[in-house]
Amino acid sequence: MKKMNPLMLSFLLMVLSLFVCSNSGFAQDTGQMVRMAKLVIDSSRLEEYKTALKEEIETSIRLEPGVITLYAVAEKSNPTHIIIFETYASEAAYKLHIQTPHFKKYKDGTLPMVKALELVELNAVLLGEKK
Amino acid sequence: MKKMNPLMLSFLLMVLSLFVCSNSGFAQDTGQMVRMAKLVIDSSRLEEYKTALKEEIETSIRLEPGVITLYAVAEKSNPTHIIIFETYASEAAYKLHIQTPHFKKYKDGTLPMVKALELVELNAVLLGEKK
Repeated sequence: MKKMNPLMLSFLLMVLSLFVCSNSGFAQDTGQMVRMAKLVIDSSRLEEYKTALKEEIETSIRLEPGVITLYAVAEKSNPTHIIIFETYASEAAYKLHIQTPHFKKYKDGTLPMVKALELVELNAVLLGEKK
Repeated sequence: MKKMNPLMLSFLLMVLSLFVCSNSGFAQDTGQMVRMAKLVIDSSRLEEYKTALKEEIETSIRLEPGVITLYAVAEKSNPTHIIIFETYASEAAYKLHIQTPHFKKYKDGTLPMVKALELVELNAVLLGEKK
Protein backbone atom coordinates (compact mmCIF):
# COMPACT_ATOMS: atom_id res chain seq x y z
CA MET A 1 0.00 0.00 0.00
CA LYS A 2 1.29 3.44 -0.88
CA LYS A 3 2.08 5.41 2.25
CA MET A 4 -0.11 8.50 2.61
CA ASN A 5 1.48 11.90 2.90
CA PRO A 6 1.40 12.70 6.64
CA LEU A 7 0.10 16.21 6.08
CA MET A 8 -2.70 14.88 3.88
CA LEU A 9 -3.50 12.31 6.60
CA SER A 10 -3.60 15.07 9.22
CA PHE A 11 -5.89 17.16 7.07
CA LEU A 12 -8.26 14.26 6.40
CA LEU A 13 -8.47 13.42 10.10
CA MET A 14 -9.19 17.05 10.93
CA VAL A 15 -11.95 17.25 8.33
CA LEU A 16 -13.37 13.96 9.61
CA SER A 17 -13.35 15.26 13.20
CA LEU A 18 -15.14 18.45 12.24
CA PHE A 19 -17.67 16.45 10.26
CA VAL A 20 -18.35 14.08 13.15
CA CYS A 21 -19.02 16.90 15.59
CA SER A 22 -21.02 19.14 13.28
CA ASN A 23 -24.74 19.08 12.79
CA SER A 24 -27.01 20.70 10.30
CA GLY A 25 -28.26 23.10 12.95
CA PHE A 26 -31.86 22.56 11.99
CA ALA A 27 -34.20 20.04 13.53
CA GLN A 28 -37.56 19.48 11.96
CA ASP A 29 -39.98 16.55 12.02
CA THR A 30 -37.43 14.22 13.53
CA GLY A 31 -39.68 12.59 16.10
CA GLN A 32 -38.40 14.97 18.74
CA MET A 33 -40.72 15.95 21.53
CA VAL A 34 -40.87 19.69 22.23
CA ARG A 35 -42.60 21.19 25.21
CA MET A 36 -42.70 24.31 27.32
CA ALA A 37 -43.24 24.23 31.06
CA LYS A 38 -44.51 27.51 32.53
CA LEU A 39 -44.19 27.82 36.27
CA VAL A 40 -44.94 30.44 38.89
CA ILE A 41 -42.67 30.13 41.90
CA ASP A 42 -43.23 31.28 45.47
CA SER A 43 -41.16 34.51 45.56
CA SER A 44 -39.81 33.72 49.04
CA ARG A 45 -38.28 30.50 47.72
CA LEU A 46 -37.17 31.61 44.25
CA GLU A 47 -33.41 31.25 44.76
CA GLU A 48 -33.87 27.85 46.39
CA TYR A 49 -36.02 26.75 43.46
CA LYS A 50 -33.47 27.95 40.89
CA THR A 51 -30.68 26.06 42.62
CA ALA A 52 -32.70 22.82 42.51
CA LEU A 53 -33.67 23.43 38.88
CA LYS A 54 -30.07 24.05 37.79
CA GLU A 55 -28.93 20.86 39.49
CA GLU A 56 -31.67 18.89 37.74
CA ILE A 57 -30.84 20.39 34.33
CA GLU A 58 -27.09 19.79 34.67
CA THR A 59 -27.63 16.18 35.71
CA SER A 60 -30.19 15.45 32.98
CA ILE A 61 -28.01 16.90 30.20
CA ARG A 62 -24.98 15.02 31.51
CA LEU A 63 -26.58 11.63 32.09
CA GLU A 64 -29.46 11.29 29.63
CA PRO A 65 -28.69 10.86 25.93
CA GLY A 66 -32.29 11.70 25.03
CA VAL A 67 -32.45 15.08 26.76
CA ILE A 68 -31.46 17.65 24.11
CA THR A 69 -32.33 21.04 25.60
CA LEU A 70 -33.58 22.22 28.95
CA TYR A 71 -33.53 25.99 28.53
CA ALA A 72 -34.66 27.59 31.75
CA VAL A 73 -35.44 31.30 31.71
CA ALA A 74 -37.24 33.82 33.90
CA GLU A 75 -39.42 36.62 32.58
CA LYS A 76 -37.62 39.93 33.11
CA SER A 77 -40.82 41.69 34.13
CA ASN A 78 -41.99 38.79 36.36
CA PRO A 79 -38.90 37.06 37.79
CA THR A 80 -41.01 34.40 39.55
CA HIS A 81 -42.40 33.32 36.17
CA ILE A 82 -40.09 30.54 34.98
CA ILE A 83 -40.23 28.96 31.55
CA ILE A 84 -38.42 25.76 30.62
CA PHE A 85 -38.08 25.05 26.92
CA GLU A 86 -37.63 21.28 26.69
CA THR A 87 -36.53 19.18 23.73
CA TYR A 88 -36.29 15.39 23.94
CA ALA A 89 -35.03 13.01 21.26
CA SER A 90 -38.36 11.14 21.40
CA GLU A 91 -41.39 10.62 23.59
CA ALA A 92 -39.66 7.52 24.97
CA ALA A 93 -36.71 9.69 26.05
CA TYR A 94 -39.12 11.98 27.88
CA LYS A 95 -40.80 9.05 29.63
CA LEU A 96 -37.38 7.80 30.74
CA HIS A 97 -36.48 11.31 31.94
CA ILE A 98 -39.39 11.61 34.35
CA GLN A 99 -38.49 8.26 35.90
CA THR A 100 -34.90 9.22 36.74
CA PRO A 101 -33.88 9.71 40.39
CA HIS A 102 -32.59 13.25 39.68
CA PHE A 103 -35.90 14.33 38.10
CA LYS A 104 -37.93 12.78 40.94
CA LYS A 105 -35.71 14.51 43.50
CA TYR A 106 -36.26 17.86 41.77
CA LYS A 107 -39.99 17.29 41.33
CA ASP A 108 -40.66 16.23 44.91
CA GLY A 109 -38.23 18.74 46.41
CA THR A 110 -39.64 21.77 44.60
CA LEU A 111 -43.34 20.87 44.79
CA PRO A 112 -44.01 23.18 47.77
CA MET A 113 -42.29 26.08 45.95
CA VAL A 114 -44.42 25.85 42.79
CA LYS A 115 -47.59 27.96 42.88
CA ALA A 116 -48.69 27.15 39.32
CA LEU A 117 -47.59 24.84 36.53
CA GLU A 118 -48.77 24.77 32.93
CA LEU A 119 -47.40 22.38 30.32
CA VAL A 120 -47.69 23.49 26.69
CA GLU A 121 -47.19 20.77 24.08
CA LEU A 122 -45.47 22.10 20.96
CA ASN A 123 -44.78 21.11 17.37
CA ALA A 124 -41.44 22.18 15.93
CA VAL A 125 -41.69 24.54 12.97
CA LEU A 126 -37.92 24.88 12.70
CA LEU A 127 -35.41 24.57 15.53
CA GLY A 128 -32.59 26.66 14.13
CA GLU A 129 -29.38 26.83 16.10
CA LYS A 130 -25.71 27.62 15.70
CA LYS A 131 -23.63 24.49 16.24
CA MET B 1 13.40 21.69 14.44
CA LYS B 2 12.74 18.05 15.15
CA LYS B 3 10.16 16.68 12.73
CA MET B 4 6.98 15.56 14.44
CA ASN B 5 5.79 11.99 14.05
CA PRO B 6 2.96 12.23 11.44
CA LEU B 7 0.61 10.06 13.48
CA MET B 8 1.16 12.24 16.53
CA LEU B 9 0.50 15.31 14.38
CA SER B 10 -2.72 13.78 13.06
CA PHE B 11 -3.84 12.92 16.56
CA LEU B 12 -3.09 16.42 17.85
CA LEU B 13 -5.01 18.03 14.97
CA MET B 14 -7.96 15.74 15.59
CA VAL B 15 -8.01 16.59 19.31
CA LEU B 16 -7.72 20.29 18.46
CA SER B 17 -10.64 20.05 16.00
CA LEU B 18 -12.85 18.31 18.54
CA PHE B 19 -11.90 20.89 21.15
CA VAL B 20 -12.71 23.79 18.83
CA CYS B 21 -16.18 22.47 18.06
CA SER B 22 -17.14 21.41 21.57
CA ASN B 23 -18.89 23.60 24.11
CA SER B 24 -19.71 23.22 27.76
CA GLY B 25 -23.40 22.88 27.00
CA PHE B 26 -24.43 25.38 29.61
CA ALA B 27 -24.86 29.09 29.04
CA GLN B 28 -25.42 31.36 31.96
CA ASP B 29 -24.75 35.05 32.57
CA THR B 30 -22.67 35.37 29.42
CA GLY B 31 -24.16 38.62 28.17
CA GLN B 32 -26.47 36.65 25.88
CA MET B 33 -29.82 38.17 25.07
CA VAL B 34 -32.75 35.77 25.42
CA ARG B 35 -36.23 36.55 24.23
CA MET B 36 -39.48 34.88 23.30
CA ALA B 37 -41.68 36.17 20.50
CA LYS B 38 -45.31 35.02 20.73
CA LEU B 39 -47.34 35.46 17.56
CA VAL B 40 -50.86 34.70 16.43
CA ILE B 41 -51.05 34.10 12.68
CA ASP B 42 -54.00 34.48 10.32
CA SER B 43 -55.10 30.85 9.90
CA SER B 44 -55.70 31.28 6.16
CA ARG B 45 -52.04 32.24 5.69
CA LEU B 46 -50.37 29.92 8.20
CA GLU B 47 -48.40 27.79 5.72
CA GLU B 48 -47.24 30.89 3.84
CA TYR B 49 -46.11 32.43 7.13
CA LYS B 50 -44.21 29.28 8.15
CA THR B 51 -42.39 29.17 4.83
CA ALA B 52 -41.24 32.79 5.25
CA LEU B 53 -40.25 32.16 8.87
CA LYS B 54 -38.19 29.07 8.00
CA GLU B 55 -36.34 30.96 5.29
CA GLU B 56 -35.57 33.79 7.69
CA ILE B 57 -34.32 31.39 10.39
CA GLU B 58 -32.12 29.41 8.00
CA THR B 59 -30.56 32.57 6.60
CA SER B 60 -29.98 34.16 10.01
CA ILE B 61 -28.33 31.04 11.46
CA ARG B 62 -26.16 30.65 8.36
CA LEU B 63 -25.05 34.26 7.94
CA GLU B 64 -25.06 35.84 11.39
CA PRO B 65 -22.41 34.79 13.90
CA GLY B 66 -24.39 36.38 16.75
CA VAL B 67 -27.64 34.47 16.21
CA ILE B 68 -27.42 31.41 18.44
CA THR B 69 -30.92 29.91 18.47
CA LEU B 70 -34.15 30.66 16.66
CA TYR B 71 -36.41 27.86 17.85
CA ALA B 72 -39.77 28.22 16.17
CA VAL B 73 -42.63 26.11 17.48
CA ALA B 74 -46.41 26.01 17.23
CA GLU B 75 -48.74 25.19 20.10
CA LYS B 76 -50.27 21.75 19.48
CA SER B 77 -53.66 22.88 20.74
CA ASN B 78 -53.53 26.23 18.86
CA PRO B 79 -51.48 25.73 15.67
CA THR B 80 -51.76 29.42 14.72
CA HIS B 81 -49.99 30.33 17.97
CA ILE B 82 -46.31 30.48 17.09
CA ILE B 83 -43.50 30.92 19.61
CA ILE B 84 -39.93 31.76 18.67
CA PHE B 85 -37.32 31.20 21.34
CA GLU B 86 -34.46 33.52 20.43
CA THR B 87 -30.92 33.59 21.78
CA TYR B 88 -28.39 36.17 20.61
CA ALA B 89 -24.71 36.41 21.57
CA SER B 90 -25.29 39.97 22.80
CA GLU B 91 -27.69 42.86 22.52
CA ALA B 92 -25.45 44.24 19.75
CA ALA B 93 -25.90 40.99 17.80
CA TYR B 94 -29.67 41.38 18.11
CA LYS B 95 -29.51 44.98 16.90
CA LEU B 96 -27.48 43.86 13.88
CA HIS B 97 -29.97 41.04 13.23
CA ILE B 98 -32.98 43.32 12.87
CA GLN B 99 -31.09 45.47 10.35
CA THR B 100 -30.29 42.58 8.00
CA PRO B 101 -32.00 42.40 4.58
CA HIS B 102 -33.32 38.86 5.30
CA PHE B 103 -34.92 39.93 8.58
CA LYS B 104 -36.47 43.04 6.99
CA LYS B 105 -37.81 40.93 4.11
CA TYR B 106 -39.42 38.50 6.59
CA LYS B 107 -40.77 41.29 8.81
CA ASP B 108 -42.32 43.32 5.99
CA GLY B 109 -43.49 40.28 4.04
CA THR B 110 -45.29 38.64 6.98
CA LEU B 111 -46.74 41.79 8.57
CA PRO B 112 -50.21 41.29 7.02
CA MET B 113 -50.28 37.66 8.26
CA VAL B 114 -49.57 38.51 11.92
CA LYS B 115 -52.70 39.12 13.99
CA ALA B 116 -50.86 39.62 17.30
CA LEU B 117 -47.27 39.87 18.48
CA GLU B 118 -45.94 39.87 22.03
CA LEU B 119 -42.24 40.07 22.88
CA VAL B 120 -41.22 38.63 26.25
CA GLU B 121 -37.77 39.63 27.49
CA LEU B 122 -36.10 36.83 29.44
CA ASN B 123 -33.19 36.25 31.79
CA ALA B 124 -31.38 32.94 31.45
CA VAL B 125 -31.53 30.73 34.54
CA LEU B 126 -29.62 27.91 32.85
CA LEU B 127 -29.61 27.13 29.14
CA GLY B 128 -28.74 23.44 29.26
CA GLU B 129 -28.21 21.63 25.99
CA LYS B 130 -26.60 18.55 24.56
CA LYS B 131 -23.77 19.51 22.23
